Amino acid sequence: MRKKLGKQTYLLPSAPAVVGRAAVVGQKEGEGPLRACFDEISEDSRFGEKTWEKAESRMLRRCFELACQKASLSPAALDFVLSGDLLNQCVSSSFAMKDSALPYLGLYGACSTMAESLALAAMLLDGGFGSAACALTGSHFCSAERQFRFPLEYGGQRCPTSQWTATGAGAVLLQSGGVGARVTHVTLGAIVDAGIKDLNAMGAAMAPAAYQTLKAHFADTGRGPDDYDAIFTGDLGALGHDLLQRLFRDDGVELDCRYMDCGVLLYDLATQDVHAGGSGCGCSASVLAGHILRGMENGVWDRVLFAATGALMSPLTAQQGSAIPGVCHAVALENGRARAC
Amino acid sequence: MRKKLGKQTYLLPSAPAVVGRAAVVGQKEGEGPLRACFDEISEDSRFGEKTWEKAESRMLRRCFELACQKASLSPAALDFVLSGDLLNQCVSSSFAMKDSALPYLGLYGACSTMAESLALAAMLLDGGFGSAACALTGSHFCSAERQFRFPLEYGGQRCPTSQWTATGAGAVLLQSGGVGARVTHVTLGAIVDAGIKDLNAMGAAMAPAAYQTLKAHFADTGRGPDDYDAIFTGDLGALGHDLLQRLFRDDGVELDCRYMDCGVLLYDLATQDVHAGGSGCGCSASVLAGHILRGMENGVWDRVLFAATGALMSPLTAQQGSAIPGVCHAVALENGRARAC
Repeated sequence: MRKKLGKQTYLLPSAPAVVGRAAVVGQKEGEGPLRACFDEISEDSRFGEKTWEKAESRMLRRCFELACQKASLSPAALDFVLSGDLLNQCVSSSFAMKDSALPYLGLYGACSTMAESLALAAMLLDGGFGSAACALTGSHFCSAERQFRFPLEYGGQRCPTSQWTATGAGAVLLQSGGVGARVTHVTLGAIVDAGIKDLNAMGAAMAPAAYQTLKAHFADTGRGPDDYDAIFTGDLGALGHDLLQRLFRDDGVELDCRYMDCGVLLYDLATQDVHAGGSGCGCSASVLAGHILRGMENGVWDRVLFAATGALMSPLTAQQGSAIPGVCHAVALENGRARAC
Repeated sequence: MRKKLGKQTYLLPSAPAVVGRAAVVGQKEGEGPLRACFDEISEDSRFGEKTWEKAESRMLRRCFELACQKASLSPAALDFVLSGDLLNQCVSSSFAMKDSALPYLGLYGACSTMAESLALAAMLLDGGFGSAACALTGSHFCSAERQFRFPLEYGGQRCPTSQWTATGAGAVLLQSGGVGARVTHVTLGAIVDAGIKDLNAMGAAMAPAAYQTLKAHFADTGRGPDDYDAIFTGDLGALGHDLLQRLFRDDGVELDCRYMDCGVLLYDLATQDVHAGGSGCGCSASVLAGHILRGMENGVWDRVLFAATGALMSPLTAQQGSAIPGVCHAVALENGRARAC
């Protein structure tokens, strides 16, 4: 069967299924509108560890263990783990998995990593490489702040377009022939550099990438927004969410209320002082594993497009005057057997 | 056909072929024993750019372009690029590819990234996802030194077990059904933490991971060292090379002179003042794309095992007292049609 559709999209004939999922978040995320969706909420920002970096790693490991437990799947039954995070050298992922004895593939897609890991895991399983895999992603507000911005003690001011890096992790277990929401298509994103240089407007930097990937997905599959019960971008926040709607509106395409953004959903923007919303790869990871897949299990949505977005910059590229390139990978999920396309 | 062999290894029935390759390196690497193998050697450590980080990105982009040119393949004919590097947020890779309009998957496997990208590209193509892909990896001595160790101006002293981060990039183009050395097997490595904490003994930290992956490869495939004309580890350097030989000798397995290490091959250890040898993900990338695949083209070797090694640490994990976990992924390459296993 021909798997490639158009330029960037692949059909997964075997449509590997989500057989396990877990979301672990921090206190602030646990106080938000999605609190009931998470498996564990830690009151302690250090998750029992001495440093925030070790906390981030512990949160990821805990999330992985919970997903396995909930799926009644021994970690040893997994063929491999695909994982990534925002810390330099992706150490929270590798340290989370270092004692698992499982084949490990490290990824870096910035805040798009949950979609990248899920897409790659699904493609590898569909390709006949093993039968079960885990996609694992997370971020931590405190470790990210001091790495990307300022030490927390500095008390840096945030502007209205700023986003709040989520303390959260999501783990999704995929299995060939399993029962659960199925990955039917993936659209691999190209990098889009729209020339945005404002480090406090990540939503604006990433929205053009989301636009490119979603447009490619619709063109490649012949689908439109109406073919989905819900479309989620990763972490564009309120600003990027509106920008993406406007970009599609200019094309005469209305995304309407079926389109939501994980960064807008994770917090109460009116009361939680997160300005434009959530960000960080733990944002879309925990919202996918906690909220979106739960909604699919409960029949709220049967066909969902999950499009996590990432800003592929570093503090150094910004200091050296470069703009912020964005990327977005999209994964189509569907309840029941995949419909013929 | 069953693709999984044993615990960690996959057989690739379609065995995607290397149809293009390029290696671009810096001046020091161009003065080493492999100088004749490289496509371009830059006398300028900044590769015409203002900063070393931009230079690293430019080197990667140049390497990608050269590989396409040499293969007479338009970049637009590629389905996706898998790329990674050592810089924080993997920016040299993403900035190298940001204007390519190609679907991009960022990886982080530290110095194992060339094997990780090659393995994943081959698996995706074998799985029917597209027909051509690029695996691209590089590192730069100057950008790595100031990020991981000290500013160059500081003139830090190096100890005898230290390795020299290579300024180099390698690009390998794979195509389903193409003509060239074929990827027949991949062994995905698990992380191994042997408790080594000495940042100046990376070879010692990574050798146990190479041992684990090679042992798994031999057990999974029923092959032994004698089934390969040559076995290359990524960048264990002289120390790690000897350690790996000793670990196998303890099992009664002799790797003998068919076993080489890219970090030992890249420089003249007696005269180039690199102490224990080369490292950095550009080391195994440039040696693979420049030397190993050239040797296969020339019939020096017909069956090769390429096992790049990585240290999954960060300066911060070292400061926080953690040991250095290693990982190693192995890719088996073979001239002509894959033999039955």
